Amino acid sequence: MSEDDGAEQELGVTKSKEYETGEWYAEVVQKAGLANYGPEGMSGFIVTRPRAYALWERVQGFLDAKFKDTGVQNAYFPMFIPESYLEREKDIVEGFDPEVAWVTHGGHEELEERLAVRPTSESIITPYISQWVRSHRDLPLRVNQWCSVVRWEATETKPFFRTKEFLWQEGHTAHETGEDAWEETMLRLDQYESAYEELLGIPVLRGQKPDHDKFPGADTTTTVEALMPDGKSVQGATSHHLGTSFAEAFDITYSDEDEEENLAHTTSWGFSWRALGALIMTHSDDQGLVLPPTVAPEQVVVVPIWQSDTQEEVLSYAEGIAEELEEAGIRVELDDRDTRNPGFKFNEHELNGVPVRFEIGPHEVDDREVTVVHRPDGEQVTVDREGIADAAQVHLDEVFAKLYAAAEENLEGEVREADDRAGILGTIGQHGGYVKAPWCGDEACEDEIKEQIAAEIVMVPFEEDDDLRNEDHDETCAICGEGARRTAYFAKAY
Amino acid sequence: MSEDDGAEQELGVTKSKEYETGEWYAEVVQKAGLANYGPEGMSGFIVTRPRAYALWERVQGFLDAKFKDTGVQNAYFPMFIPESYLEREKDIVEGFDPEVAWVTHGGHEELEERLAVRPTSESIITPYISQWVRSHRDLPLRVNQWCSVVRWEATETKPFFRTKEFLWQEGHTAHETGEDAWEETMLRLDQYESAYEELLGIPVLRGQKPDHDKFPGADTTTTVEALMPDGKSVQGATSHHLGTSFAEAFDITYSDEDEEENLAHTTSWGFSWRALGALIMTHSDDQGLVLPPTVAPEQVVVVPIWQSDTQEEVLSYAEGIAEELEEAGIRVELDDRDTRNPGFKFNEHELNGVPVRFEIGPHEVDDREVTVVHRPDGEQVTVDREGIADAAQVHLDEVFAKLYAAAEENLEGEVREADDRAGILGTIGQHGGYVKAPWCGDEACEDEIKEQIAAEIVMVPFEEDDDLRNEDHDETCAICGEGARRTAYFAKAY
Ligand SMILES: [Zn+2]
Ligand SMILES: [Zn+2]
Repeated sequence: MSEDDGAEQELGVTKSKEYETGEWYAEVVQKAGLANYGPEGMSGFIVTRPRAYALWERVQGFLDAKFKDTGVQNAYFPMFIPESYLEREKDIVEGFDPEVAWVTHGGHEELEERLAVRPTSESIITPYISQWVRSHRDLPLRVNQWCSVVRWEATETKPFFRTKEFLWQEGHTAHETGEDAWEETMLRLDQYESAYEELLGIPVLRGQKPDHDKFPGADTTTTVEALMPDGKSVQGATSHHLGTSFAEAFDITYSDEDEEENLAHTTSWGFSWRALGALIMTHSDDQGLVLPPTVAPEQVVVVPIWQSDTQEEVLSYAEGIAEELEEAGIRVELDDRDTRNPGFKFNEHELNGVPVRFEIGPHEVDDREVTVVHRPDGEQVTVDREGIADAAQVHLDEVFAKLYAAAEENLEGEVREADDRAGILGTIGQHGGYVKAPWCGDEACEDEIKEQIAAEIVMVPFEEDDDLRNEDHDETCAICGEGARRTAYFAKAY
Repeated sequence: MSEDDGAEQELGVTKSKEYETGEWYAEVVQKAGLANYGPEGMSGFIVTRPRAYALWERVQGFLDAKFKDTGVQNAYFPMFIPESYLEREKDIVEGFDPEVAWVTHGGHEELEERLAVRPTSESIITPYISQWVRSHRDLPLRVNQWCSVVRWEATETKPFFRTKEFLWQEGHTAHETGEDAWEETMLRLDQYESAYEELLGIPVLRGQKPDHDKFPGADTTTTVEALMPDGKSVQGATSHHLGTSFAEAFDITYSDEDEEENLAHTTSWGFSWRALGALIMTHSDDQGLVLPPTVAPEQVVVVPIWQSDTQEEVLSYAEGIAEELEEAGIRVELDDRDTRNPGFKFNEHELNGVPVRFEIGPHEVDDREVTVVHRPDGEQVTVDREGIADAAQVHLDEVFAKLYAAAEENLEGEVREADDRAGILGTIGQHGGYVKAPWCGDEACEDEIKEQIAAEIVMVPFEEDDDLRNEDHDETCAICGEGARRTAYFAKAY
């Protein structure tokens, strides 16, 4: 064992995903080189290293193309918001109390009015939309920005899931009618669902937040929820139908075809790097990071295995294969370092989540073959050298399908029903996951469950999908026994 | 004249580029929909509207691809820097006094240590690079981030040129040797030069800053300088060879092949949205914005001109042409609005800087032709319908060449020489532009010129290009008469 290989043990993940999920997650983030914690004095902040930032760039690319195809333009608004602007949201929201970072000094001078570092930008973007919208010809108006936001919540840091500063996009739109705004809200939710399912390989549930948990000022907050392997739900992204409340507070009106002034209807929608947390948490295992090929920085790693007498032929065979994959548009790395042995390389690429490994030794060269190994389950098959790029694509697709299927199976098995309090508490206590239960709509009933088991209503179905919305049924609230009005999905949440 | 056309006058630019450059610039920025000023209480901040942000996205795309092709990985570091971290730069720089925005409160709590909103990130990135670098195998290490920074300078706001918050990228690298770091410094300067010349159509001068004007702590600060039409120089972008000063202050060492510990050599380099200011200022005119086709959001606008009896044939002919251009990868807009007359449309697209206009009326349909108009000079030619996409590309290239040639002619005519104080003052006073003069290297001599005419030394040639560097010549400093040691480029600067 060479000196380098002594580091192997220390490089590997030591915690168990099943039994020490939190510690395991932190270890994967650190050892796969995804993030570091912020400097001393800045708890809650992280440094996003290139391997994680590359994942974010793929998410950005995917969503940004969809946004642009559907009429969205990117813009950039100041990172600071004057306190008086933020205060105007009090017109909309009773008891609004922003937990933000405050800038009080510029250079050596104290500012006349303190500035909040943006926690979200409705209060600065909406006044500009108000200036830009004059007539119905200016609608719909859609702007989006990719930026970072700061929320000064004092909780334990969990990279990507819970940080004081995080990266996200926030879209803001104005429309002529409430129906148009609702269509927009759902279009963005659909795009978020695609990002989770088609790009990240994570199936989600779609629905809306209960009224008491909506975005302040929103008519409806819609959400995609993803189930993590520890049985907790992640709010994957939200899309808000804001109705006319922001248009009223910030005076967005337009003149219609008859020259009459009308209030616009607005939406906002956001997708954050929390999705990276869900990605890491969902697919990874006790060997380290697992990534779907759709987002993996390297999709295939080619590891040549040689002795001195076979080095030349093995390397040249491996190089040819790597080139062929690259020409086919596959992201491939040829790991021809001569300072590491193959076992070390296997472990390192497993830790880093490369979806497919090609092993190439003298036997593969002789037989004009390649040994292909899938990262998620170690499945190993031999394929012909001829047509290797097509074969690689087939195996990448298989790896994606395996990851998606495992996540889907987890989700489908973890939606249970209950019709009384004991059922909700017992089921979540024993299994985690989601428990569907009839609910009267009263926050107090959720509070009871929250107090006892720290689970909450993460979602209710859309109104038109919820049988309990109409009143001709006899279902009663699982907690208080009053008439049920919604189907509530209870779960512990991230 | 329809009701809408009444707005035409108000939409147009009213100031003169030649005689009221500053007011003209502000008007173009506003009327072409590029930016708005920030909210009350936030002077120095701007809102970047979609038309300007799209330009920034093209600059980003161009540079980001070059960076990635040359070994750079993107990352993201916290937007705040603890005061004690910033203070460590005092080890490097005497009298370092950052003019920054200070965060003093998080939520309702006062922070134990105040946090600076990043003015640049050396002091937070370098300590992490120090953690990541252990051995020579970790070098070179190159990270870059696209982000916004804040510098609390109390000067008049000029969108993109001077704002308290601005968008930029900052690259930070570490290398084994000083030569490697110098190569990196020059590679990035080359890429910045390409961005100005090939993408933005602006020729630049390359050189280095005089020692007293280097980036704090740098061995050498290199710069690309662009001459604006008002005769002032813009520092287009800078690339710094930092030597070992940051590595010493933040302890970046690596073990070499013989297991000896060495100090790394570092660089940093940044390109900001000031380039958009230079872009707007250089090419635009009294009709509004002028954009090179390389960055224009729409490269060709097709304007059909019809009467009711010709509407159908003209529109269908115009649509076919727009489709053909789009298929060829040209960014084309078909302006078929029936609420605006052609004259209004011409003015609007001129104001917005669309490089090429296609005019299509019944005559063009009959003759199977298109009338092509170049935005910069109004040149008008007729081309065949057959092969229209190729013809469009030819005209786009011609427009780029015209813009570049005009800027180049301006630059070449504006580099003059002087060998005494009166010559420097008189030449800059009369013509603006650059004045080359022999200089002793003493800041005091620059100060004299600064005080009298507000011009400064914006650049000296690279050491190896400067004949005055070696001592076997009799040239004397144009200001003090001592022996000359550098060739100084004096200019008024943005
Ligand atoms: Zn109830
Ligand atoms: Zn002198």
